Amino acid sequence: MSTSERKLHLNAFIRGAGHHEAAWRHPDTHPELSLDIQHFIQLAQTAERGLLDSLFLADGYVGKTNKLEPFTFLSALAAVTRHIGLIATVNTTYNEPFHIARKFASLDHISHGRAGWNIVTGSGSAEANFGRDEHPEHSLRYETAEEFVEVTKQLWDSWEDDALVYDKQSGTQFAHGKVHEINFKGKYYSVKGPLNIPRPPQGYPVLVQAGSSESGKELAARTAEVIFTAQQTFADGKAFYTDVKSRLAKYGRTPEQLHILPGISPILADTEAEAREIERELDNLIDTTDAVKRLSSRFGVDLSEYPIDGPVPLHEAKELEEVNGNKSRHQLVIDLVRNENLTIRQLVQRLAGARGHLTFTGTPLQMADVMEHWFKNGAADGFNVMPQLYPSGLDVFVEQVIPELQNRGLFRTAYEGQTLRENLGLVRPANLHQIPNLAVKQS
Amino acid sequence: MSTSERKLHLNAFIRGAGHHEAAWRHPDTHPELSLDIQHFIQLAQTAERGLLDSLFLADGYVGKTNKLEPFTFLSALAAVTRHIGLIATVNTTYNEPFHIARKFASLDHISHGRAGWNIVTGSGSAEANFGRDEHPEHSLRYETAEEFVEVTKQLWDSWEDDALVYDKQSGTQFAHGKVHEINFKGKYYSVKGPLNIPRPPQGYPVLVQAGSSESGKELAARTAEVIFTAQQTFADGKAFYTDVKSRLAKYGRTPEQLHILPGISPILADTEAEAREIERELDNLIDTTDAVKRLSSRFGVDLSEYPIDGPVPLHEAKELEEVNGNKSRHQLVIDLVRNENLTIRQLVQRLAGARGHLTFTGTPLQMADVMEHWFKNGAADGFNVMPQLYPSGLDVFVEQVIPELQNRGLFRTAYEGQTLRENLGLVRPANLHQIPNLAVKQS
Repeated sequence: MSTSERKLHLNAFIRGAGHHEAAWRHPDTHPELSLDIQHFIQLAQTAERGLLDSLFLADGYVGKTNKLEPFTFLSALAAVTRHIGLIATVNTTYNEPFHIARKFASLDHISHGRAGWNIVTGSGSAEANFGRDEHPEHSLRYETAEEFVEVTKQLWDSWEDDALVYDKQSGTQFAHGKVHEINFKGKYYSVKGPLNIPRPPQGYPVLVQAGSSESGKELAARTAEVIFTAQQTFADGKAFYTDVKSRLAKYGRTPEQLHILPGISPILADTEAEAREIERELDNLIDTTDAVKRLSSRFGVDLSEYPIDGPVPLHEAKELEEVNGNKSRHQLVIDLVRNENLTIRQLVQRLAGARGHLTFTGTPLQMADVMEHWFKNGAADGFNVMPQLYPSGLDVFVEQVIPELQNRGLFRTAYEGQTLRENLGLVRPANLHQIPNLAVKQS
Repeated sequence: MSTSERKLHLNAFIRGAGHHEAAWRHPDTHPELSLDIQHFIQLAQTAERGLLDSLFLADGYVGKTNKLEPFTFLSALAAVTRHIGLIATVNTTYNEPFHIARKFASLDHISHGRAGWNIVTGSGSAEANFGRDEHPEHSLRYETAEEFVEVTKQLWDSWEDDALVYDKQSGTQFAHGKVHEINFKGKYYSVKGPLNIPRPPQGYPVLVQAGSSESGKELAARTAEVIFTAQQTFADGKAFYTDVKSRLAKYGRTPEQLHILPGISPILADTEAEAREIERELDNLIDTTDAVKRLSSRFGVDLSEYPIDGPVPLHEAKELEEVNGNKSRHQLVIDLVRNENLTIRQLVQRLAGARGHLTFTGTPLQMADVMEHWFKNGAADGFNVMPQLYPSGLDVFVEQVIPELQNRGLFRTAYEGQTLRENLGLVRPANLHQIPNLAVKQS
């Protein structure tokens, strides 16, 4: 694909009433619909009207959350959409590869090739819901995740693409010798196979990664086809983009095989002043006491004992090595405080928009400018769009930002393919059992 | 509910091309649609047009099957149906209570209260797909299952029904003190909680059980609200019905709290002769070699070494104690051979229709007669309908058997309620934390 043809790839990051932590209190949102699939069907259909590549939602196994579970949620959406990709966040630390490979295969069949997997390893406290004593530390989680993904790939490949025959005449349902046991015996998993469902239409679901730590970047370079990342400035974004793309060659991969999509969390209005007014409105709705409590837990220091309009006491904060959750996000927050000399209140507001993702307040044209700048100057292949208010923020994005991006030749005017993989311009992976090299070796 | 008002409850047992093992070879079926959700959406909509209570599909974790996974499958159907209950078969031996409680809660929210759980403990060989050395023996699986169900109930109850507030003014999303840790520490599971999704609209999904062994019957009497069972004769059906209903009192339950639905697997046509012709056609399509191989594995003896038109060598077959899978089904097959002196070929044909469930070949009127007889004479509260051919068998059932049952006053003419529980006439379970007795104790 020549540079002139290169297009943005856009994902809608779905979240109840929106990404601003006080979104649910804003008059435009409907938090009481957080478990109502009709609310999300409308969002999905809006995103599809905007020709977005995909939608996804975050996930976790701890806490008092009012969210639907990803596989059930996305399968319901699959039945009432036709084009949009459906990306499920699924944890490798507290699941079985057989169940996960199967559910993704099933979602991929149901959606006719629109499934994606955002691979995460989880942050602390989930262990207590699964009879475990502790949350494994960061590097062990990544090592496990790699083996987990390897098992799922082998399971998806356990059915050759032409294994199903359905020859009524001869009575042959399955072609002879085209469904294989995998007999995987690794350090963490032992799985015999075959999978109990044929290979997904896409071969594998599109593999997505969101960790931006050192091991996260390395896993992404080896495995991922899309990265969701949080970058606060163009300079950081460009550095991250350059770093990750440069790691691909050693795994025999080209830069086009991995799309980097930074998060961008907009508040949009017809004028910048109106957008700023919405932002102020939202910031006034923040429950500061609660936000300070969460920041205190993140930093490992009780911030309520410090003046809220004074500096963040970084010298008291946890060292990176002590963090057992999202290391790269912790680093990002610390850098943010350092670089901008933020007070506690300023940091609370800064994180309220999108928990560390780049926020944007302005007009649709201004937003298109930012996206074009990042896209054309080596900082992004597209964006993970995180409206601070749902559904209104997505409506404005689809109705006003998308046409502007199309006018500039930066975004598709129709879906190119049938599957998420095709719309992302990604190759369908060959089946392990059908790779020509292996056939050559045997002959 | 007075006896005159008592109505049949009907479930459609979904299975690719139909329940006859050669159904996929019949000219009326479309086995190539076995992974196509549109095929199943049509079946679900047909069943809903027929006002059936629910649909369900069997499930397992071993073998070369071309079936969609239950949670993804039923969630997709939930998005395009409004009334029909959606019953997922989920195994307690190879799953985590937290994941399963969550997925059922999510399916129940998505379907606005139409989820059911067919609780199974699995048969052998699945262990190798989950890194385990052996499939636990029967009584251990049932003991584990009971604890598993207990944990899921506590997780569903971990959110009181009025825990969500969404008071934008005060900034209160969750009512104080209405979401609880469960801190469950049992023999097999340790789960802290709370669940990460609010209580299902139905309180709990409708709990279904299908094992008919001694421990199966006892678990059902204590826990289940619906039983799917295989009974070959009216006498067997009546004995089973009487036995199970009599076990309810000791758990403080009434007969109305548990519906017993024997399987019935019909081949329907306008005349009995035509129906017999379809039956012959199907029996001729059976792959006898393959069927004998499966029977051999069931009996633990190589039947291909015996004359196919000679008697089944029962004296060589496995004792009940050696069976690690479905004991009650094994007993049923042995009784069938004994009572009817079947040859190997006859047994093959007998099981081909519905693997041991009652088969029926005839007209819609004749089928209504059988159903009425069982229903009015203490052998059934309804049926698990298992058409030998899909979709044609379900079409005929809905278009011709249902109106006949309605004419006889045996079946609803409109859905009575909004949820599966309401349509089944089952009470919504109180939340553990909101039971008046407990409140009294505390005061």
